[in-house]
Amino acid sequence: MNTTTYFQAINPTTNESLEKQFKNTSIEELNDAVAKATLAFASYRKKDKETIANFLEQIAEEIINLGDELITVCNQETGLPVGRLQGERGRTVNQLKLFASVVREGSWVDARIDTAISDRVPLPKSDIRHILIPLGPVAVFGASNFPLAFSTAGGDTASALASGCPVIVKGHEAHPHTSALIADAILKAVATCNMPDGVFTLLQGNTRSLGEALVKHKDIKAVGFTGSFNGGKALFDYANQRLEPIPVFAEMGSTNPVFILPGALKEKAVIIAEGLVASIAMGVGQFCTSPGISFIENGSGIEQFYQTLKQKVTNTDSGTMLTPSIKIAYERGLKKLQEVQEVEEIAAGLEEVAVNNSTVRLFKTTVENYQREAFLAEENFGPSSIIIESNSKEQILESARNLQGHLTATIFGTDEDFENYSELFDILELKVGRVLVNGYPTGVEVCHSMVHGGPFPATTASNSTSVGTGAIKRFVRPVCFQDFPHNKLPKALQNDNPLSLFRIVNGTITNDKIE
Amino acid sequence: MNTTTYFQAINPTTNESLEKQFKNTSIEELNDAVAKATLAFASYRKKDKETIANFLEQIAEEIINLGDELITVCNQETGLPVGRLQGERGRTVNQLKLFASVVREGSWVDARIDTAISDRVPLPKSDIRHILIPLGPVAVFGASNFPLAFSTAGGDTASALASGCPVIVKGHEAHPHTSALIADAILKAVATCNMPDGVFTLLQGNTRSLGEALVKHKDIKAVGFTGSFNGGKALFDYANQRLEPIPVFAEMGSTNPVFILPGALKEKAVIIAEGLVASIAMGVGQFCTSPGISFIENGSGIEQFYQTLKQKVTNTDSGTMLTPSIKIAYERGLKKLQEVQEVEEIAAGLEEVAVNNSTVRLFKTTVENYQREAFLAEENFGPSSIIIESNSKEQILESARNLQGHLTATIFGTDEDFENYSELFDILELKVGRVLVNGYPTGVEVCHSMVHGGPFPATTASNSTSVGTGAIKRFVRPVCFQDFPHNKLPKALQNDNPLSLFRIVNGTITNDKIE
Repeated sequence: MNTTTYFQAINPTTNESLEKQFKNTSIEELNDAVAKATLAFASYRKKDKETIANFLEQIAEEIINLGDELITVCNQETGLPVGRLQGERGRTVNQLKLFASVVREGSWVDARIDTAISDRVPLPKSDIRHILIPLGPVAVFGASNFPLAFSTAGGDTASALASGCPVIVKGHEAHPHTSALIADAILKAVATCNMPDGVFTLLQGNTRSLGEALVKHKDIKAVGFTGSFNGGKALFDYANQRLEPIPVFAEMGSTNPVFILPGALKEKAVIIAEGLVASIAMGVGQFCTSPGISFIENGSGIEQFYQTLKQKVTNTDSGTMLTPSIKIAYERGLKKLQEVQEVEEIAAGLEEVAVNNSTVRLFKTTVENYQREAFLAEENFGPSSIIIESNSKEQILESARNLQGHLTATIFGTDEDFENYSELFDILELKVGRVLVNGYPTGVEVCHSMVHGGPFPATTASNSTSVGTGAIKRFVRPVCFQDFPHNKLPKALQNDNPLSLFRIVNGTITNDKIE
Repeated sequence: MNTTTYFQAINPTTNESLEKQFKNTSIEELNDAVAKATLAFASYRKKDKETIANFLEQIAEEIINLGDELITVCNQETGLPVGRLQGERGRTVNQLKLFASVVREGSWVDARIDTAISDRVPLPKSDIRHILIPLGPVAVFGASNFPLAFSTAGGDTASALASGCPVIVKGHEAHPHTSALIADAILKAVATCNMPDGVFTLLQGNTRSLGEALVKHKDIKAVGFTGSFNGGKALFDYANQRLEPIPVFAEMGSTNPVFILPGALKEKAVIIAEGLVASIAMGVGQFCTSPGISFIENGSGIEQFYQTLKQKVTNTDSGTMLTPSIKIAYERGLKKLQEVQEVEEIAAGLEEVAVNNSTVRLFKTTVENYQREAFLAEENFGPSSIIIESNSKEQILESARNLQGHLTATIFGTDEDFENYSELFDILELKVGRVLVNGYPTGVEVCHSMVHGGPFPATTASNSTSVGTGAIKRFVRPVCFQDFPHNKLPKALQNDNPLSLFRIVNGTITNDKIE
């Protein structure tokens, strides 16, 4: 198929196609991009930390320089409100700056040095030095729900560039113009900072085959993905079927269970319910960390809890979903849910007033029914959520034990609850990437301690995070150098510690020089 | 198939079956072991670092307490010389102690703390704390070639236990009695240290189906393996086809290319050739890091090099291979090699004097022939090695560029060579886990900086090492705790830093308390 094809984004608030056309990337263009990235890798990976940090900061600056056009275009393509997009731009820019700071500090490379002992018996000990090195060109698949912070210059791109890997982004077909603007900003930074040609490429396309070809390209060395389970799992399988399997860091979302313990329900039913509805409604339920399921125990406060939920939901505005296909999938899931026996709709939000609008819908059922109907544990991406009513502590704990992997789990409780449900903490930390207490999972802080990940099926790589500075360690591997001439060692491993890193020297963590 | 079957090891020096019979583990026994390990995990993962360190040290002590019987039995089952096995026992014991020291120091858990900023605008910042937690029961497949250091209580077991994971070892069918003795030692340590029942189990068996069932068991959370490419790749595929894919850390060996540069060849042909033959012959060529291929440039010193190789090889004793099937596979590979056009045998060692004996065989060919015959780049596990003769620097560099992933690569050179072949360093570090200068790859130091790993097909997980303390990070994943009550945090994350760890606190590496 050598015919050139084009595609347009759809304005989800009108269902009309936007004017600007985008060419589907051909296989030749894909191959060319990977070849350039491979070439760029040779020099990019050797750049000093200051140069890479400056590059990341320059990207941030160029994104700001795009000004209002970025927000306007993105709003047209995603239906996300201007205020939200301005906030997300801030997050995107700060994320790049935070990675710059990690690169500048530099200790993330895990420098380890074991010095020689030439007179050791029975065998002399060699000088061995260990460092993390970047893997090579990384393929990044942007998310539709964070068109700035988890797309073209989002967390995956920032962390891969920070680690020394060139990036090829398969742009999300729902916001190609946004992607194109961001790619322009990155390419300006590439030029300003004299970075090698090919260190970043955006490939536009609305076919699955483009993504498949990218992941299967022999010179792609790792994949970052944020999106649906089916999408992420497909890439994971492609990657493992390659002649040379490569790692896929796919964040595939989850239901983000919430546990509301009896003391909290009794003391804070109203405030918890209000916050829960706000969290469910956030971004029209299209956050990876949206709380899709809550476990409560029948007891004091429960009436007040339901009453507040109802009241709050009933007054919640509907909102535009990101794409017509997300809206369709959501409605399909909703229909399926409504057909499940003994699932009761507690409340629905204000009427849908435009195309692709959805409104919050809250359901409840018994824990027995939940245990029977596996479907109830599945994510339905959108603003619906279900309350599971238990009658005992044991049922709560059993529900926790039977959870699959999720991104987050949340516990609402009093100090007394925490003692009584102590086991719940132990169970949940094995099920998720982030456990929260008395808060809501929506809102993912970009910081050093964040884990936005978790056991399968939340991700395909529970050993990592896709948000926060820990993400830089996804796209690297260790290598060690034995008895190297000192001038052939990277600076990070030289005796006088010219980069002032914390290193493990003969087993001791230190930022001292080696005498 | 519910019939109980038994198997015996073979003494490779006689090809006779050893007396002791071992029962093939049934699926029921396997399930029972995993169930016990899962139960043990709940308490084992919560043990404090001192307790786990003591446990590892106690295992070391119990292995020493096995005394001469261990060496005698292992010698009968593997044909490895007593002196070598005594050395390997020392390495096994020291490995356990080294992991104990890492556990006791404790900073490997990557504690990260971002403290709250309640008055941040527009949104308050939560308190978030990050730590690595163990994955759960780990399946370990021991290697035949290191029946102590990479088998039942070898590196995989030591690192998994150190990280807080229970271990189920599928014992290697070639040395079941050795495995049984070591398992007894571990179980004594389990009892002495009051460790939970099921924290360690040895499963004996000589069927592939046992290993397959183990990897496919839903409660196994990771796999460590050392062995052949076919074996490791099969486990990797099983693991990825599971409903919940799990990581497989398979070390599958490699050809360990050696590059002998012109200056070194000229100045040190004799000494390099002597060392090379010794390295090839070591353990009858049955080391994962055995140098199977060497690249040289035609030039000054080459005659002396070949002469020395010939002389040295011709005087090298044959030795007993580990198992009859390894011997058969090696002979098959040798035959295939000898049938390749333009491959010349330089020399063969002293005649084979007993069953399963093999002798060193050295071959050479041209780089052009090497480029034509993909087979020449493949590992043939045993004491054969091939010299590839180039005529130019560019051919040397091109050979390096075309390498697949290997465990090690070695450069012999003078300072002048290092300048002239500077690019070789850059190429090789992308191809292997360990790059050596003027040394031999056999002999893998167990230390903090070691990387015994490398890109596929050397391993299925280039992001890790299977030797050295870095191995502890294979069997863990990050989790973070948001706004936790302080008494619910693990000690590693508490404000007063009771474990005195190095941590990342608000982006700064420090072992200070938080005020």
